[in-house]
Amino acid sequence: MATKTLTTLEDLLALELKDLFSAEQQIVKALPDMIKAASSQKLQAALKEHLGETERQVERLQQACERIGLNPKGHKCAAMEGLLEEGAGIVKQKGKAADAVLDAAIISAAQRVEHYEIAGYGTAATFAKLLGHDQIAALLGETLEEEKNADSSLTELAESEVNVEAVGTEA
Amino acid sequence: MATKTLTTLEDLLALELKDLFSAEQQIVKALPDMIKAASSQKLQAALKEHLGETERQVERLQQACERIGLNPKGHKCAAMEGLLEEGAGIVKQKGKAADAVLDAAIISAAQRVEHYEIAGYGTAATFAKLLGHDQIAALLGETLEEEKNADSSLTELAESEVNVEAVGTEA
Repeated sequence: MATKTLTTLEDLLALELKDLFSAEQQIVKALPDMIKAASSQKLQAALKEHLGETERQVERLQQACERIGLNPKGHKCAAMEGLLEEGAGIVKQKGKAADAVLDAAIISAAQRVEHYEIAGYGTAATFAKLLGHDQIAALLGETLEEEKNADSSLTELAESEVNVEAVGTEA
Repeated sequence: MATKTLTTLEDLLALELKDLFSAEQQIVKALPDMIKAASSQKLQAALKEHLGETERQVERLQQACERIGLNPKGHKCAAMEGLLEEGAGIVKQKGKAADAVLDAAIISAAQRVEHYEIAGYGTAATFAKLLGHDQIAALLGETLEEEKNADSSLTELAESEVNVEAVGTEA
């Protein structure tokens, strides 16, 4: 993800913010197809809720970038591109795969995305704090908690409903 | 990551195993460059240890696949490709970036990789357990714990040493 020379930790924080901005924008574009491909109403609802949350996370990143005069645009998060390519491969199986198995696969892909963000926001929030950018750290910390909650909600949904139905496909 | 039609949860488990096998093999190839690019001796040592661990994780995946007669080859994990593309971008800054900042960037990239694996092994282990493949679940669970420990070790190293030095680059 490196473009500018990393001379200071401030440079690395800027790179992390641009990377997350690109990642979130890609997620906003990809989620509607995942919502359409989901069969479980609870999964659809959870993904829809996360889409709204993601849109607010983009705004939060813009606010964070404004505080240090950073233009977040012009960087492509290659990791999120790969993660969502996998998600798109899953979505393409709509109509062919068993509904419950496809739902389990969507949750699997979505949790990989959440984990990328958990790692990314965790690191960026730490750098912001170390550099004395307390308000940026607070904005990033808020999103970090949302990503952790989104991941936990998907685990609960998988355990309580989706996986149970997917196991049923073996019968 | 979808190639075969996902008719049963068994199909999805197979896909998860093939995805993780490809991911681990890509990591084994990428880690030596990250080790070379690291300046902190403790970071070099941590990454070297994780390289050995990763090689054993590949073997564990092969054992898991053998138990269900699955050939793990022939699938490319697109997400890991993207994640390691970002890592390679960081590595290229060796000699240009400040050493401590580059170390912080290497840890950041490595933790994104760890989180991919935490999500992947967590999901695969759950599916294996649900399907009654207890020994596969145990193998995957063992690796999952290693990945979580590797992530925690990197956080500790960042907090105790690398980040402190990287902040010093601002002075």
